[in-house]
Amino acid sequence: MSRIRITISYDGSAFSGYQVQPNKRTVQLELEDALRKMHKGYDIKVTSSGRTDAGVHAIGQVCHFDSNLILPIEAWKKALNALLPDDIHVSNAEDVEDEFHARFSTTGKEYRYKILLSKDPNVFQRKYMYHYPYELDIKRMEEAANLLVGTHDYSSFCAANTDVKDKVRTIYSILISKKDNELTISFKGNGFLYNMVRILVGTLLEVGNGKIKVSEMKEIIEAKNRAKAGRTAPAQGLYLWEVFYS
Amino acid sequence: MSRIRITISYDGSAFSGYQVQPNKRTVQLELEDALRKMHKGYDIKVTSSGRTDAGVHAIGQVCHFDSNLILPIEAWKKALNALLPDDIHVSNAEDVEDEFHARFSTTGKEYRYKILLSKDPNVFQRKYMYHYPYELDIKRMEEAANLLVGTHDYSSFCAANTDVKDKVRTIYSILISKKDNELTISFKGNGFLYNMVRILVGTLLEVGNGKIKVSEMKEIIEAKNRAKAGRTAPAQGLYLWEVFYS
Repeated sequence: MSRIRITISYDGSAFSGYQVQPNKRTVQLELEDALRKMHKGYDIKVTSSGRTDAGVHAIGQVCHFDSNLILPIEAWKKALNALLPDDIHVSNAEDVEDEFHARFSTTGKEYRYKILLSKDPNVFQRKYMYHYPYELDIKRMEEAANLLVGTHDYSSFCAANTDVKDKVRTIYSILISKKDNELTISFKGNGFLYNMVRILVGTLLEVGNGKIKVSEMKEIIEAKNRAKAGRTAPAQGLYLWEVFYS
Repeated sequence: MSRIRITISYDGSAFSGYQVQPNKRTVQLELEDALRKMHKGYDIKVTSSGRTDAGVHAIGQVCHFDSNLILPIEAWKKALNALLPDDIHVSNAEDVEDEFHARFSTTGKEYRYKILLSKDPNVFQRKYMYHYPYELDIKRMEEAANLLVGTHDYSSFCAANTDVKDKVRTIYSILISKKDNELTISFKGNGFLYNMVRILVGTLLEVGNGKIKVSEMKEIIEAKNRAKAGRTAPAQGLYLWEVFYS
């Protein structure tokens, strides 16, 4: 039995998220279907670094699974890509120690959120960026972002329907960059709560358009109340960019 | 009655091409459905600069139609975009003279073809670029492209199933540009035959990979025989970029 770690990218637009759900097309379902074909009908459970929601994309999602199939490591990538649909791609496969766990071994993650600032929408980007045709004060957004970095209880930025008790997380950095009319907000942290990145983005956008003042940010964090923060930005702008392991 | 000219972009991936066909989702069908809603159920015929095939995209397709609806010109763009699905977008609408005809008034067109040269495919570009993971000699492709420019009988570069008798066209320019691992080939000409750009691209790729020699190009053109040219490149890399009018 050996443990295989794979790095995958997927276009989230035709998936009901990562995790298996009854009668839904999910990324995990497609991975496990492909592995079942490689293992003569036996079920192979795939564990990811964490789920992603419907419509959310991944550039560097990491998963692991155990297999008794003896294959040169290069063959795993090739075989899986031949069996997977074309909206999932395995970019890397490697043998790892049995102690490696895609979820519990993570030391952090990077998410990126992409926003199209043009007045007109772009038909080719409609599933891959959030179209935001209004004015934004990016300097103010950066000031607010600085106040969000650090170790905080992020209850104000967590979807209400979650079981997680401890909502303290550390955001290492938030980087806002603009290239032509594409705004990208990168978040690196030791972990993110349910919908946290999308609520952070929604809040930063409301700072950018003047609805929320930079001076209100401290109060919003301290309230530990979801209702105080901005709206949840839509799924299609969000990418799980990289998962870190020590 | 006034004549309206619209410029539209569309993501061709979910369309069976531009032109209306029974029981198929086409761009023309969606445009005419939207116009029918604006005209209390009356049919409005839309005329485009030319059809595009299934999977082919457009950045600047031009169409015209006639209407007795009295609307400020800005309202046309807004109303149509509100009624159209999100894979078609009207970027411009203007009043034109009755003599303007989207098809017969054109003086030329620009098509662009996008190729992704990376070893691994990109899940986000699979419907928007042709993934070509092999080596290409771009210098040789440019030499061959220079031989294709000019006024020629392009029968060798026209799909066999066409009714068009006169296959003489003028290609004004072919420009090959590479940015990171994205190769774009732009074609400007006074008109293009059925599948012509895709066959030109397929032929240039075979020059780039060494299957066809630059010295064979003259012979291929003069043969006036489809079988002599390269394969038809797939639809998803092709964009109708701009339509020119005098």
